Amino acid sequence: MCDTCGCDHDIKEKKVVDVNQSLLKANEEAAASNRKHFNDKGILAINIISSPGSGKTTLLEKTIESMKEDISIGVLEGDIETELDAERIRAKGVPAVQLTTGGACHLEAALIHKGFHSLEHQLNGKKLDVLFIENVGNLVCPSFFDLGEHVRVVLISVPEGQDKPLKYPKAIKTSQVLMISKADLVPHFDFDMEKIKKDALSLNPSLKIMVTSAKTGDGLEDWFEFIKTSINKRTQGV
Amino acid sequence: MCDTCGCDHDIKEKKVVDVNQSLLKANEEAAASNRKHFNDKGILAINIISSPGSGKTTLLEKTIESMKEDISIGVLEGDIETELDAERIRAKGVPAVQLTTGGACHLEAALIHKGFHSLEHQLNGKKLDVLFIENVGNLVCPSFFDLGEHVRVVLISVPEGQDKPLKYPKAIKTSQVLMISKADLVPHFDFDMEKIKKDALSLNPSLKIMVTSAKTGDGLEDWFEFIKTSINKRTQGV
Repeated sequence: MCDTCGCDHDIKEKKVVDVNQSLLKANEEAAASNRKHFNDKGILAINIISSPGSGKTTLLEKTIESMKEDISIGVLEGDIETELDAERIRAKGVPAVQLTTGGACHLEAALIHKGFHSLEHQLNGKKLDVLFIENVGNLVCPSFFDLGEHVRVVLISVPEGQDKPLKYPKAIKTSQVLMISKADLVPHFDFDMEKIKKDALSLNPSLKIMVTSAKTGDGLEDWFEFIKTSINKRTQGV
Repeated sequence: MCDTCGCDHDIKEKKVVDVNQSLLKANEEAAASNRKHFNDKGILAINIISSPGSGKTTLLEKTIESMKEDISIGVLEGDIETELDAERIRAKGVPAVQLTTGGACHLEAALIHKGFHSLEHQLNGKKLDVLFIENVGNLVCPSFFDLGEHVRVVLISVPEGQDKPLKYPKAIKTSQVLMISKADLVPHFDFDMEKIKKDALSLNPSLKIMVTSAKTGDGLEDWFEFIKTSINKRTQGV
């Protein structure tokens, strides 16, 4: 109860917490089911999260261009509105399903489950090596929702600034990879690369950090190598 | 009910909608109360929303530097974690209260109410002309929550790309001003300024669009003038 005017926002806050916990629990169950699906089918699932415009779709385009001859790739594209991103992915020659959330700020495991079934219809029995899930552009909410992925990658682009790990710690703590994207722009910003790495590692000491530029191609080989290694680990049941 | 495996996510989705509607209704009531507070005290309240790293705090720093001799400014700083932004604002010599949401992805009207009381304690009876509310860095969720502001400003920075209005329509539809920030970076990007303006106006024909660079100062005079005009309108009860 607010001690200044007696309004009831504390009561409301309590209610929100209860509901959120129930939703997160339901999501965890759906995520566990998704993960079992992916494991049974030998698919590596990678969930990519970031703010809007950090370069998730461009990273996927470059990854597909470089790797599609060697591995089988499928993509689930999360957005609030529009089919724009799925169209960009399909133009690169791999199957993609657009998941529009119609206002919701993140993907949830149940929607991934639906989307994965739709993607399977497009595959006509072909086996996938990697399923990329591009989350809704949002550095906050997606970090609370396990989708059943094996690897979570968070992108922070250089123009966003080096203070983002401390301000958005959940995204850093729940990811295995931090990709610092648009690194070609460093000369145009007062961007402290050592500080962002140090802050991120202080939150998550086992975080793998990659510095990349989709424009120049710098650093992308590390990313491709990481994907190949992760696929091999899954195939070997590690 | 999912027709592939019979899981209950549709039931869950229905429940979420009901709860969200109840929360939004409670927020609307708190927002109306805030707006009445601001009106009674003759304060112009401006809610600034954007993705992380679009330049909200930098815009406020530049605004304070230019205007603090002529008008009385107070700031509520929304973040999930850290006092970093409130410290930046206080360093410019105006009162600021940091509102940390502890995980939540947006500010709500009830928290603004609390924060405004805290800010008033710092003012020692001094009247405010403008209250800036810097929302949590998130282009999605804050657009659903009226805080009782008179003006909502959405920032989209050039590095984020010109496709953002169509992908995040709610933020555009509910704002009175779109500020396209970091405009000095246009030469480094394939950024279609005419398209972003056209898309934004197709969603919200009465939107006022400003193109600015906090680095070079270009376009900021329009913003300062807009604030002055808006204060005068409020003083005259328009």
